[in-house]
Amino acid sequence: MQSASHGEAFPVRTPAASHIFTTLLSHGPLTRPELARRTGLSAAAVTKAVRPLIESAYLVEDVAEEARPTLGRPANPVRVDGGRALFAGVKVTGDEVIGVLTDLCCRVCAARHMPLPARDPRAVLAAVAELVGALLIEADGLGVPVLGLGVAVSGDVDRVRGVVRYSPFLEWRGIPLAELAATTTGLPVTVDNDVRALTVAEQWFGGGVGLSNFAVVTVGAGIGCGIVVHGRVVAGAQGVAGEIGHVTIDPAGPLCHCGNRGCVEAIAGDAAILARIREATGVDVAGPTEAVDLARRGVPGAREAYARAGEAIGRALATVANLLGPERVIISGEGLAAYDLFAEQVRDAFAAAAFGSAARCDIQTRPLPFEEWARGAAAIAIQSFIRPSSDQTPTSAREHS
Amino acid sequence: MQSASHGEAFPVRTPAASHIFTTLLSHGPLTRPELARRTGLSAAAVTKAVRPLIESAYLVEDVAEEARPTLGRPANPVRVDGGRALFAGVKVTGDEVIGVLTDLCCRVCAARHMPLPARDPRAVLAAVAELVGALLIEADGLGVPVLGLGVAVSGDVDRVRGVVRYSPFLEWRGIPLAELAATTTGLPVTVDNDVRALTVAEQWFGGGVGLSNFAVVTVGAGIGCGIVVHGRVVAGAQGVAGEIGHVTIDPAGPLCHCGNRGCVEAIAGDAAILARIREATGVDVAGPTEAVDLARRGVPGAREAYARAGEAIGRALATVANLLGPERVIISGEGLAAYDLFAEQVRDAFAAAAFGSAARCDIQTRPLPFEEWARGAAAIAIQSFIRPSSDQTPTSAREHS
Ligand SMILES: [Zn+2]
Ligand SMILES: [Zn+2]
Repeated sequence: MQSASHGEAFPVRTPAASHIFTTLLSHGPLTRPELARRTGLSAAAVTKAVRPLIESAYLVEDVAEEARPTLGRPANPVRVDGGRALFAGVKVTGDEVIGVLTDLCCRVCAARHMPLPARDPRAVLAAVAELVGALLIEADGLGVPVLGLGVAVSGDVDRVRGVVRYSPFLEWRGIPLAELAATTTGLPVTVDNDVRALTVAEQWFGGGVGLSNFAVVTVGAGIGCGIVVHGRVVAGAQGVAGEIGHVTIDPAGPLCHCGNRGCVEAIAGDAAILARIREATGVDVAGPTEAVDLARRGVPGAREAYARAGEAIGRALATVANLLGPERVIISGEGLAAYDLFAEQVRDAFAAAAFGSAARCDIQTRPLPFEEWARGAAAIAIQSFIRPSSDQTPTSAREHS
Repeated sequence: MQSASHGEAFPVRTPAASHIFTTLLSHGPLTRPELARRTGLSAAAVTKAVRPLIESAYLVEDVAEEARPTLGRPANPVRVDGGRALFAGVKVTGDEVIGVLTDLCCRVCAARHMPLPARDPRAVLAAVAELVGALLIEADGLGVPVLGLGVAVSGDVDRVRGVVRYSPFLEWRGIPLAELAATTTGLPVTVDNDVRALTVAEQWFGGGVGLSNFAVVTVGAGIGCGIVVHGRVVAGAQGVAGEIGHVTIDPAGPLCHCGNRGCVEAIAGDAAILARIREATGVDVAGPTEAVDLARRGVPGAREAYARAGEAIGRALATVANLLGPERVIISGEGLAAYDLFAEQVRDAFAAAAFGSAARCDIQTRPLPFEEWARGAAAIAIQSFIRPSSDQTPTSAREHS
C-alpha cells in the first residue's frame, strides 16, 4: 500500500478557495483581478484564498518579467500546479474496469483496463484494487503523492455516504463501496453515479465550460443524464437525479426493468433496440454492432427500431429543456456510434415537444470514450479533496495509512 | 403618481447581505451566531453585512435585557423591520387582476381585486395602474414608502429584460411589461412567470422553508411548475423552465394548444377535462364547477376524465422527481378544489413511475388563493430590491419619479 497520501489536506477548505481553484482548473492561468471578476469575489477575498494555496504549492504564480508594468504590482497570472498531486479515477462497466491516473489538473498520466470476471462486489473490488495498485506503481515512478480515488458506477449512488444504493446493471443493493475501496486501496475514496462524474469533467474541461445550466445525456446500454443547475451538478435530495432513462415516454410502451412501462431506456437502450429488431426482422442479432449493420443496410425493422429510439430520446431531451431550460445538452455515450441512424428523429422529436424558447437549447454530440468517464471519476476525487469543510466529506480510509 | 420611492436603494447589495436578509425573512429573529451557522458565512461577514442594514433601519436588533448574559456581548436577535418599507404585488389572471400591498416582511397589509374587461396589454395595464393606484393610497395612509412592484403573469417571461415573451393564456407576445408598468405606476417593476413568483413566496414563507430542492406544481386552467434547485428558483437559460404543462405524457394523446400532442395540460388542464367530459357524456358542461359536480355524482365519463388527469399529473411529478430528486413537491392551484377526484391516481401513477429512492419525495397539497400568488409577486419585488448588484436588475421607472 502507498503511504504517500497520509491524509494530506487542502489548506483552505472554504467555498471561496474551492471556487477559485475550480475556476483556475477550467480556465487556466488567470491574474487575481481576472479571478475576482470571474468568481464575483472581492479582490481581498481572492488574495486571502490564493496566498496559502501558493504557500502550499497547489497554485503557482507565473512571474513574467517582460509583462511587469512599470508602475504598481505586476498582474502575474496564477495557475494550478498540476504536478503537485495525483488522483486516480475508476469507471466500472459491465465487463471491465477502466482506470486513469491524473495530475491535479485532471490531465491523464496513465490509463489501464482490467476485465471483470464477474459483477459481484467482491470481484469488482478485487479488480479495482489491482487496477489502482498498478496506477500507484506508476505514481511511485513519478514521485508524486496520490491524494484520492474516485469510483464511478451506474445507478442510484449516495455520494455523501459512499454507498451504491441500487445499481440495476451490476445488480447491487446497498453496497458501502467507498469504505470497501478505501480499505483495499488505502486511499480516500469518493463514489458517485458515473454520469454525474462525467458531467463534472465536462463542466470543468469539456462541453460545459463557462455554462451554469447544461446537461449531459448518455446513450448506450443505459440512458443516463447529468444535470448542472446554478453551476452545480444536481444530486437530488435522496441521491436520485438525472434518471432520464426512466422518464415515461409512452404509457403503452414496453415494460422496463425498473417495473414501469414505456421508459426511455425501455425504448432506446441497447437491449430494447436489439429486442425490437429481433422481433421485427426475425434475425437473432447478437449485439449493437450487428444491429447497426442491419440498419445501415436498410433493413426496415432495424431502421425503425433506431428511429423509434431517436424519437424517445428527442422527446426526453425536450422534457429536460421544458423543465430546466439548459443552455446546452451534450449527447454522448457508446450509443453515439449509431447516431447517424437516429439523429434526425432526435432533432425532430425535440423540436416538436420543446416549448417556446426552450427549443433554442444547443444540442451537441460529443464522443467521450470510457477513459473520459474514468477521468470524471478522478475529477470527483479532486472535487472532494478541495471541497469546503462545511460540505460533507467522502469516506476515508480509516484504519489504513 | 407617488414620489415615495425616489429610487431608494438597499444599502448593501452583496450576495452575503441578500442571503442574510432572506434568511431573516424566512426564519424570523436570529442572533448573529445563528445567522452565521444558517448561512455558512463567517461571523465577521455577518457583522459586516448586518451593521449597515441596522443603520439604515432595514434590520432591527431586539435588545432583551433579561436575556443578557453576565459575560461578553449580548446575543441579541436581529430581525427585519417589516414597517420600514412597502411593496406591491399583482397577479394577472384571465378575468381579473389581484393586487396586494405588503410590508418588507411580505405580510399582506391590503388586498384588492379588479375585473379585466379584456386581455390585451392596454386593458391589463390600465387595470394594473388603477389597482396599484388604490394600493398606493393605502400606503400613503400608512406613511411608509412603496419601494417596488412585482407583476406575475403566466407564460414565458424574461424577468431580466422585463418582457413577457409569450403568454398563450393572454395571447401576448413580446410585451415589455416591466417598462410599461413602470411608466404607468412610477414604481420600479419586476415581472416574472406567476408560478415562479409563487414559488419564491413558498420558499421564503410556505411549504419550501428550509429546503434547497423542492417544486411547486399548480393545477387548474394551466399546469405550471416552479422548481428550486440548490436553493434558487430555476429560470432557464432562455427564460423557459418549469413548463411541466408541456411535458409529453402520451405521444398518442390529444393535441395541445402549444402544437405538441399529449402534453400534461392537454390531458389535465381544465379545458381538456371539460372537453373530455363533453365528449364522453354528451353533457355540455359550462365550467369546472359543473364538471366536478357530474364527477362527484358518479357519472362515469366525468369520473374517468378526472382519473386520467390525475394519472397524467402523477406521471409528470415522477418525471420531475426522476430528473431532479426534489425533497418535496407542493401541489396547488385552483384545480385542488377537485383533488378528491384524482388524488388516488396522482399517487398511484407517481409511485409506478418514480425511480428508486426518488419515490421517497414528499408530495403535499396546499391550497393557495390568488392573494397568495399576488404575494408571490410582491416577494419578487422584494427579491429585486435586495438583490446583489452583480445580478441584473429589473426595469425601473426611468423618466418618472
Ligand atoms: Zn424504467
Ligand atoms: Zn403543450
